[in-house]
Amino acid sequence: MARAIDIPDLVARAQQGQAAAVARLISLVEDDSPALPEVSAALAPHTGRAHIVGLTGSPGVGKSTSTSALVSSLRQQGKRVAVLAIDPSSPFSGGALLGDRIRMSEHDTDPDVFIRSMASRGHLGGLAGAAPQALRVLDAAGCDVILVETVGVGQSEVEIAGIADTTLVLLAPGMGDGIQAAKAGILEIGDIFVINKADRDGAATTRRELRTMIGMRADTGDWTAPIVLTVATKGEGTDEVVDEIQNHFAYLTESGELTRRRVGRARREIEALALASVQRRLGEHAAGTEQLAAEVAAGSLDPFAAASRLLDHS
Amino acid sequence: MARAIDIPDLVARAQQGQAAAVARLISLVEDDSPALPEVSAALAPHTGRAHIVGLTGSPGVGKSTSTSALVSSLRQQGKRVAVLAIDPSSPFSGGALLGDRIRMSEHDTDPDVFIRSMASRGHLGGLAGAAPQALRVLDAAGCDVILVETVGVGQSEVEIAGIADTTLVLLAPGMGDGIQAAKAGILEIGDIFVINKADRDGAATTRRELRTMIGMRADTGDWTAPIVLTVATKGEGTDEVVDEIQNHFAYLTESGELTRRRVGRARREIEALALASVQRRLGEHAAGTEQLAAEVAAGSLDPFAAASRLLDHS
Repeated sequence: MARAIDIPDLVARAQQGQAAAVARLISLVEDDSPALPEVSAALAPHTGRAHIVGLTGSPGVGKSTSTSALVSSLRQQGKRVAVLAIDPSSPFSGGALLGDRIRMSEHDTDPDVFIRSMASRGHLGGLAGAAPQALRVLDAAGCDVILVETVGVGQSEVEIAGIADTTLVLLAPGMGDGIQAAKAGILEIGDIFVINKADRDGAATTRRELRTMIGMRADTGDWTAPIVLTVATKGEGTDEVVDEIQNHFAYLTESGELTRRRVGRARREIEALALASVQRRLGEHAAGTEQLAAEVAAGSLDPFAAASRLLDHS
Repeated sequence: MARAIDIPDLVARAQQGQAAAVARLISLVEDDSPALPEVSAALAPHTGRAHIVGLTGSPGVGKSTSTSALVSSLRQQGKRVAVLAIDPSSPFSGGALLGDRIRMSEHDTDPDVFIRSMASRGHLGGLAGAAPQALRVLDAAGCDVILVETVGVGQSEVEIAGIADTTLVLLAPGMGDGIQAAKAGILEIGDIFVINKADRDGAATTRRELRTMIGMRADTGDWTAPIVLTVATKGEGTDEVVDEIQNHFAYLTESGELTRRRVGRARREIEALALASVQRRLGEHAAGTEQLAAEVAAGSLDPFAAASRLLDHS
């Protein structure tokens, strides 16, 4: 049995910015702890301040280096910063992100930088259920900006736009990145585009291609996604990215789009949690389900009627 | 508005083996029709006869050609056969499978062969919800053997084992197929292994590697997965595959494993349908959800409490 956790104390200590309390709370999210509803209720009044910035891009574009450079630039402005790396494919945290952690080591001793990796596989609500809760912990801990990135590619790269206020899409010159981006659908979700490794051949071409593709996007209101060229390893262009992040936040706030995005995020989170709760309840009725399944397998009951009975009795 | 459908008549005509009625019923499954519970209830008493055989394997191993050769071999024994190709990534049916259909054209005019492709993306219950219902249609239509394959790779390749009585894993010599199979987890799910294109170099090596890996599998009861070498384009080895399919069915029946697998399948189907039904109900409460989401975004309500309220009111 787990020890009883003093949730109000844990939340109070997280609010004071104590790293151990923040880490503990995120672990509760990761582990799908039964204490989560209580945690969530205790956090709610202290949330809504942080600007959540999602970073997405194919492997090899320099995502971790860019994240680290952004952290440096934000710290120079005195901001409290968090980095949340989500691994949707792994049931384990930590290991896969060792590389990132090493590259982040310059920020390790800074008490105003939280760096955390989290596994979401196996979490009943998936990425959509787990990530917003972890973000809420970091938000309540007084972070001004939370950088979120996913490990790996595919669906999760697009999902990140669903949990962020502002989405940064990272590209690198050449390698048909532009076309690949369009294919993956990440072109549609970018609020700011960053062409990293801009000291390499082809940066201008990639910018031109990208500009054309951005021009063909569906209406995105009064915001036209800027393209920033960076060399993250040297910190070049990073301050400009931070400027654009702040411009976008101002746009979001003034246009009312911030509220729209956050309400949309809350809606998806609520639905994911509701479904997860039903899934858990169904799991608790294993014996009854097995009996219904036997009747369906024998042809004496149809699966729709069985599903309906299962819901009635769970 | 859709015309009212005479379900009992449609099911009766499907039972007589009328291809148009079978196709119509599968379209209802694909479209997630509101008539599905009625269809399902009408089909239930006529199901449980067909032997469901899943085919899985990486692109390039000759899956379609093998399927077509298996159909020929089963037809020579006078069996009524169906082929169900499921595309979990596409919201559309037909198009993506045109290639398969051309290769299947030799069976097009045979009234005892049903060939059907079905899209499962967008289906609320996903592959696990849609496929068993389509299989039930083909089962009630008097098919002796139903060959199921998925288009594309990844998770769906493993999912197919969850809906089949017998799972065939297709490999081809060389190209590190053995190791790839192990990685994808399809090695664990194979009841019968087929090395197609066995007239190419490396077939003996692939068989040897495969034999070793099968030897390392967790206990699979009294059944040791056989390895059959085929050249599907020439029909070589196909009769032997059919023999092994029938051997496996006999083993399943005698050991009680058939019932266990079918009850497991029914259980997953019931759970998928129950969740889909909750999801649909939540979707019908969009306005209420939006209100709750606004409160969560404002920090005046936490998402767990919101999810709980949503479930109470839907």
